[in-house]
Amino acid sequence: MTYCVGMRLNRGLIFMSDTRTNAGVDNISTFNKMFTFEIPGERMITLMTAGNLATTQAVISMLQERSKAPDDRNPSILEAPSMFQVARIVGDTLRSVIALNADAGQRADSSFNATIIVGGQIKGSEPRLFLIYPEGNFIEASDDTPFFQIGETKYGRPILVRAYDPDMSWEAAVKLLMVSFDSTIKANLGVGLPLDLMTYETDSMEIGHKKRIEADNVHYRAISDGWGDALKSAFDQLPDIKL
Amino acid sequence: MTYCVGMRLNRGLIFMSDTRTNAGVDNISTFNKMFTFEIPGERMITLMTAGNLATTQAVISMLQERSKAPDDRNPSILEAPSMFQVARIVGDTLRSVIALNADAGQRADSSFNATIIVGGQIKGSEPRLFLIYPEGNFIEASDDTPFFQIGETKYGRPILVRAYDPDMSWEAAVKLLMVSFDSTIKANLGVGLPLDLMTYETDSMEIGHKKRIEADNVHYRAISDGWGDALKSAFDQLPDIKL
Repeated sequence: MTYCVGMRLNRGLIFMSDTRTNAGVDNISTFNKMFTFEIPGERMITLMTAGNLATTQAVISMLQERSKAPDDRNPSILEAPSMFQVARIVGDTLRSVIALNADAGQRADSSFNATIIVGGQIKGSEPRLFLIYPEGNFIEASDDTPFFQIGETKYGRPILVRAYDPDMSWEAAVKLLMVSFDSTIKANLGVGLPLDLMTYETDSMEIGHKKRIEADNVHYRAISDGWGDALKSAFDQLPDIKL
Repeated sequence: MTYCVGMRLNRGLIFMSDTRTNAGVDNISTFNKMFTFEIPGERMITLMTAGNLATTQAVISMLQERSKAPDDRNPSILEAPSMFQVARIVGDTLRSVIALNADAGQRADSSFNATIIVGGQIKGSEPRLFLIYPEGNFIEASDDTPFFQIGETKYGRPILVRAYDPDMSWEAAVKLLMVSFDSTIKANLGVGLPLDLMTYETDSMEIGHKKRIEADNVHYRAISDGWGDALKSAFDQLPDIKL
């Protein structure tokens, strides 16, 4: 399992991903699921992946190879003229990798599917955030749906829905994501620390904060420990019920 | 979809279920999912069901017929000597109903599976709470795992994990369940109002409070509206993060 959230704020984009991968509960590893492609001053593109690890690693490797070998017949996301074209390239790559495995006539215990969040900005246009499906098609975040989750999305969703505010500060957004991830980590063994965090300030055309949050991170510990008490006091604050 | 929670408290048992059933999103109905079998002064048994509606209705009907026709070769849950035996009867009935449909060689879009929460007390022993699987086997709630959820369990779980307290009052427990159900209803169209609520006071051997909570219930509205604000203030109360 996996949990990743990409969020659109008025001040930019924020991304958080966990790092746990598992095949069953007895084969657990730590893998990076956040990948950034950057030409400082010109474009910043971040991908987060969920699903079959072989599929997502192949997609990322193909995107990276193309960005290094400009003669490749396939376009590089570092050359695409718009974020929409970037999303199309990622979607096409994802679909072709899945098709390659599915066509081989092999049977696997789990599917080869994967889902990808792509966000970023190319100079001259707005920051954009996309959710890319295994079929290669995609949807874009909007004011009504300003964030995307992939992987184990349910445990951490109620707090996002209730506390998200497009005007929130980076600090508040990180706090919100930490609470959402903590709720998920407490409920599903397939989601685990450390977490990767990245912020992107609109029109900066470069990575903002980038940080790995380990299990002993003091801020994370304070949020994780404090949230239980905060929830309880929120709960006590609710009006009494007469049975 | 469905959402039901059965919870063990020091003062007794509490049950809540939604009433929405759906086949896809365009075929939505309201059905009761909470069923009580009672011999006041002697035993109180409550079942809540999730899964294929034809399966769960057949199980409940068979259990009800047997409790009325004592000559039936199968035992009635109104005569079983212990809650463990009650759980076995419910489990055997559930397995046989599922097997009947599965063996008919029919194919269905959805599976015939169902899951059942059974809780209650028989005079002379403690109140007990069981979760019954489609295979007919079951597990019992304990001090470590004092509640069971069935159906769409994920959205409403974090608050249960954080705010549950075995000593809580009926009023606090109802509030907790309302928050958990509200989080789920806001996230999944397959879970909907009205809700059914039942409390059972240990050693009372009869139904405690039994109530249908409609969408215009003032307590539910106060909890649903108040929880957003309470969560936000809980969130603001968390320590600030330095990026």
